[in-house]
Amino acid sequence: MAVGPIAVNGSGKSALPLVQQLSKDHEVVLKTFRLLIADLCQQFGGGHPGGAIGMAAIGVALWRYVMRYAPHTPDYFNRDRFVLSNGHTCLFQYTFLHLTGYKAMTFDQLKSYHSDRIDALCPGHPEIEHEGIEVTTGPLGQGVANAVGLAMATKNLAAKFNQPGYDLVSNHTWCMIGDACLQEGVGLEAISYAGHLKLNNLTVIYDNNQITCDGSVDLTNTEDVNAKMRACGWEVIDVENGCYDIEGLVKALEQARVSKDKPTFINVRTIIGLGSNVAGMAAAHGAAFGAPNVAQMKKDNGFNPNEHFVIGESVRKFFEDLPARGESLVRDWNELVKQYSAQYPELGGEFQRRMSGELPSNWKDLIPSSFPEKPTASRASSGLVFNPIAEKMENFMVGTADLSPSVNMIWPGKVDFQHPGLRTTCNINGNYSGRYIHYGVREHAMCAISNGLAAYAPNTFIPVTSSFFMFYLYAAPAVRMGALQRLQIIHCATHDSIGMGEDGPTHQPIELAALYRAMPNLLYIRPGDSEETAGAWITALEAKKTSTIISTSRHALPQLKQTRRDGVTRGAYVLQEAENAAITLIGVGAELSFALEVAYKLKESGIVARVVSFPCQRLFEQQSLEYRRSVLQRHRGVPAVVIEPYAPNGWERYADAGVCVKRFGHSLPGKVAYKFFGYGIEELTEKVKGYLGRVEGDEVLRREFVEL
Amino acid sequence: MAVGPIAVNGSGKSALPLVQQLSKDHEVVLKTFRLLIADLCQQFGGGHPGGAIGMAAIGVALWRYVMRYAPHTPDYFNRDRFVLSNGHTCLFQYTFLHLTGYKAMTFDQLKSYHSDRIDALCPGHPEIEHEGIEVTTGPLGQGVANAVGLAMATKNLAAKFNQPGYDLVSNHTWCMIGDACLQEGVGLEAISYAGHLKLNNLTVIYDNNQITCDGSVDLTNTEDVNAKMRACGWEVIDVENGCYDIEGLVKALEQARVSKDKPTFINVRTIIGLGSNVAGMAAAHGAAFGAPNVAQMKKDNGFNPNEHFVIGESVRKFFEDLPARGESLVRDWNELVKQYSAQYPELGGEFQRRMSGELPSNWKDLIPSSFPEKPTASRASSGLVFNPIAEKMENFMVGTADLSPSVNMIWPGKVDFQHPGLRTTCNINGNYSGRYIHYGVREHAMCAISNGLAAYAPNTFIPVTSSFFMFYLYAAPAVRMGALQRLQIIHCATHDSIGMGEDGPTHQPIELAALYRAMPNLLYIRPGDSEETAGAWITALEAKKTSTIISTSRHALPQLKQTRRDGVTRGAYVLQEAENAAITLIGVGAELSFALEVAYKLKESGIVARVVSFPCQRLFEQQSLEYRRSVLQRHRGVPAVVIEPYAPNGWERYADAGVCVKRFGHSLPGKVAYKFFGYGIEELTEKVKGYLGRVEGDEVLRREFVEL
Repeated sequence: MAVGPIAVNGSGKSALPLVQQLSKDHEVVLKTFRLLIADLCQQFGGGHPGGAIGMAAIGVALWRYVMRYAPHTPDYFNRDRFVLSNGHTCLFQYTFLHLTGYKAMTFDQLKSYHSDRIDALCPGHPEIEHEGIEVTTGPLGQGVANAVGLAMATKNLAAKFNQPGYDLVSNHTWCMIGDACLQEGVGLEAISYAGHLKLNNLTVIYDNNQITCDGSVDLTNTEDVNAKMRACGWEVIDVENGCYDIEGLVKALEQARVSKDKPTFINVRTIIGLGSNVAGMAAAHGAAFGAPNVAQMKKDNGFNPNEHFVIGESVRKFFEDLPARGESLVRDWNELVKQYSAQYPELGGEFQRRMSGELPSNWKDLIPSSFPEKPTASRASSGLVFNPIAEKMENFMVGTADLSPSVNMIWPGKVDFQHPGLRTTCNINGNYSGRYIHYGVREHAMCAISNGLAAYAPNTFIPVTSSFFMFYLYAAPAVRMGALQRLQIIHCATHDSIGMGEDGPTHQPIELAALYRAMPNLLYIRPGDSEETAGAWITALEAKKTSTIISTSRHALPQLKQTRRDGVTRGAYVLQEAENAAITLIGVGAELSFALEVAYKLKESGIVARVVSFPCQRLFEQQSLEYRRSVLQRHRGVPAVVIEPYAPNGWERYADAGVCVKRFGHSLPGKVAYKFFGYGIEELTEKVKGYLGRVEGDEVLRREFVEL
Repeated sequence: MAVGPIAVNGSGKSALPLVQQLSKDHEVVLKTFRLLIADLCQQFGGGHPGGAIGMAAIGVALWRYVMRYAPHTPDYFNRDRFVLSNGHTCLFQYTFLHLTGYKAMTFDQLKSYHSDRIDALCPGHPEIEHEGIEVTTGPLGQGVANAVGLAMATKNLAAKFNQPGYDLVSNHTWCMIGDACLQEGVGLEAISYAGHLKLNNLTVIYDNNQITCDGSVDLTNTEDVNAKMRACGWEVIDVENGCYDIEGLVKALEQARVSKDKPTFINVRTIIGLGSNVAGMAAAHGAAFGAPNVAQMKKDNGFNPNEHFVIGESVRKFFEDLPARGESLVRDWNELVKQYSAQYPELGGEFQRRMSGELPSNWKDLIPSSFPEKPTASRASSGLVFNPIAEKMENFMVGTADLSPSVNMIWPGKVDFQHPGLRTTCNINGNYSGRYIHYGVREHAMCAISNGLAAYAPNTFIPVTSSFFMFYLYAAPAVRMGALQRLQIIHCATHDSIGMGEDGPTHQPIELAALYRAMPNLLYIRPGDSEETAGAWITALEAKKTSTIISTSRHALPQLKQTRRDGVTRGAYVLQEAENAAITLIGVGAELSFALEVAYKLKESGIVARVVSFPCQRLFEQQSLEYRRSVLQRHRGVPAVVIEPYAPNGWERYADAGVCVKRFGHSLPGKVAYKFFGYGIEELTEKVKGYLGRVEGDEVLRREFVEL
């Protein structure tokens, strides 16, 4: 069957004539899809069938008629992005990937859902590593924010590169959600922010089945969802008969694509587990229906109850043209890029570079080779190091959760990422080509949106976020999702120690580093001065598949002569060596200078101390055993003491004793807070001396970490 | 001056006649207050003056006219609760506490804001430990949710205890917020949920100054806030001239107090830093104005620029009757309770018990002394242990973030906490005396609301929350605030290991325990079977000033003969002793049985292993050195290996080697996931044997933790 021409740019032709032409097949397609889902869950007696079954018609409208994508070129740059924010309904997406011809998603693979196959492409939630999946979802609400980031990426590239007649980047982002994404805070933050940005290239499709795990949504949410979305600046479209009305869905989706200046919310009334014995009930959500019930569903639908995983010829045929349609999109777009590059060679080259994910090769030259000698807060050092790079290299989208005055991430002439209309209505200097993002006091959405920006295409965008370190606890689920997805995202966290002072225990991070030091694929780096901050940034910028937190101080730190940026890239290094040392002092970040000062004081008492700077545990773990031993010298019997006003958890691997903090903080001016917690130089020195005495007197056992 | 009679119950008389009577003093009171704030910040050159200054009239309306409280009996049980969710404006609250006569808040104390005074009552954010402060705030959005919890507490007690003519519990909760609390996800979750619950005893007062740190709110939020609140089921009242219109504010607040069936949102237009040279600007937010500007403010207001901290006689007089008014409230209420107890002796006794915060003394008897022998998921064990207690003892409010079918916290005959009208409209079996809380998919609000419930009065409520362990990362900022405030809150976290299986890496907690093991005043306990689960609950229930996470498995665990509930209360204990052991195996929670099985296998090879069960690091730390050594035996040279599929961080303190996980998880059925990550018994045994070989061959150094 013929597929009408799909214009690459602009609004294209409506798919409605095609919908009418193919509508005779809709019934069997929907039945087949639903029974397939029931079978896929039943075979292993688990999974989430209900949602996927309820959303069948939405999927047909999206994948058959509305979305622009290329199953045989899954990474086609200008493809529409689809996000399954209700990720537990993953079979919905997997099955459409299979039906529409994604090569990796073979029938065998599809049937591997919940199997013990190690290389399965059908994990319990969609994973970015796999063909046709844009972002990993599962933790609810994240996907909505990811979709906002994906839509922002499109807007930014379009504003930068599109020219009259050349809509180079024009894709739409579609995000499927369930009830939960409208309850989770991160979803609500992102919805509010998307409305503010007037992202008309974003559509959220609400699988409104009114059922959650606990039962009716009425148990927990009785608000007027549509009115709330409108208040947040969204266009709202209702689709009443969402289980069957494919034409109505296509109309709604097409209307959303051409929305003038708002994101669109399509509220689709569906029935969870439609056609099963638990249709419309919570029991349809998270368990297989049971073999007898699946058999009954088949009978009710005129299928043979003894046959499983049936996809009839007409259903195959219904989807068969999609790969060809996709390749035609790709060809047209490649041609467009070619013509564009001929007409705008400089922009064309820049566009190619952005697509490649490479930074201009001279990025390192922009980092100062030395710094002023005056004491400098490492948050300020961060700006000194990074702002020249951010200014020049447009891969960087730099955001803050309403802490611009604190985080120092503003470069000269920065322009905000904003809807251009805001200039008129609110006198704000921004547009969609701007790269500084005021996220508002929305730390969680900031980081989840950044995941979406980064997921748009590998390293085409390198998102930077910023806030107080303590508030990366609000954002932690999104920071985790970035690390899990191997996205290069750089989090600039200031006020990282009790030294931040008066704001007190609610703002003083005692235990948070323990989380981020344990989090896989994340580098938590505490630089000690400007030179080490340079090392932290170099590390973060070179980590193309890893997220980084650069953790800095509010207060001024002395510039140390001994610090080395290349030392930071190895996690830890010898800051000050000494022959026949009695002890190794480990200094970290904002308190690095304390270790040096204590070493100096110890010398006055005739005690020789070596000093190690230890900005990043994970980087150190990646070094050879030989290097690690050369730094710590514990294998030669030299005990090590770490000085850090954080919970000690984890330092036991590297130190024999520590001056750490195991209670919450205290609201005091920074210097007083240090003293209050025992970090005065005199007191530290006495503690270390006392410890050495216990070591010499054999009062301390080698295997027991001592808190000083 | 005479203060009109304040009825303890019902709506009382309007304060409006009094407002008119005292209105001649309003101007000087507002000026005095604002200049005092400017001085208090200026003396130490820091702090947050702008918000407090903008909110002056709101404070007068609240503390002078509308709120019911007793400065000289700060813990008067039926007092109105006030929550400063925009906690950085703490001087607002501190100053009114001083003016209204709270004894602890002396003038000297007030002036200690941002000083280096260790015992200051004016930390950078309000702290629950101090007189007149209901909850610790600072991290934005938390206070809104706390206020929801406080209002729920009132509703629950009122539904349980109030009788005709005896409105024993009738207090209102007032919550002050800034722009940020309307942006933070936790605030939005709580707002949505409060609307659902129709908490007409809750009022949120919005300091709508349209300014955040970064500048105009228009930079980040252009939604229709009032429409959004209405969509969420709130009554909305606007006050246009919020800097001066005390009468309008009182009218709005009084209207809010008698709201029929909705919480109330009062949108008060104010000007940040009113009267200063940075009025209406972001610069007024987080820095002192500078001495010349403060002097100019004084001149502008007819005050002597060379005088500081001036509180004139008329201002003192304006507030002077409030302690007496408060004591009269207390007396009336005490009399009411007395009469009530005479008329309803049983309820009266129960009310006294609830106020005392004590559980009935027989609570421990309700815990089964033994359990069925069949393998049992520890999440099911949790239900076996706790549900009989929850059923009988009404201190417990048990909530879930939409995971009722997974967390097993439902007791026979449980009734939901819901607005009673929901029974008619949605056929839901609940009312305000119910104690099972369907929070919806709002983990963060669940825990922050629980903080409010717990803060209502010490241990009058013991909130229990439940979700998947991984999603306590969403809730972490609120869990932290509970621990910081020394609130007894019990978090039931299931699906706590890679053994939870198919849901995959987004749901498998690898690094999260590192956070909670490091968090001060929080017990993270992983019980290994039903007996240990009993121990975990006993610990949690006895910890009156500490929060606990009971971390359980999705999958069935064998019931072990050797486990002991009293062992759990000590953090770790010897599960299986052995003479001349070559190694100690440390088993934890869902994988505890692995350690026993490995010991058994090792025996087959002639290797003697002892086994330690180690459910809680913090509890173990609290034991004597002698006990700790007796359990671990490392001081006698026996190496220890920990087996836990989490990041190893922190175990280095107790073990010489570990079989841990340092990558994200993998979506596989539970048993397959264990095998995939190297936790098959054969493989574990081989790893331990290999390690012992390296120890014997001196390849392993004592101070180096080895990952197996």
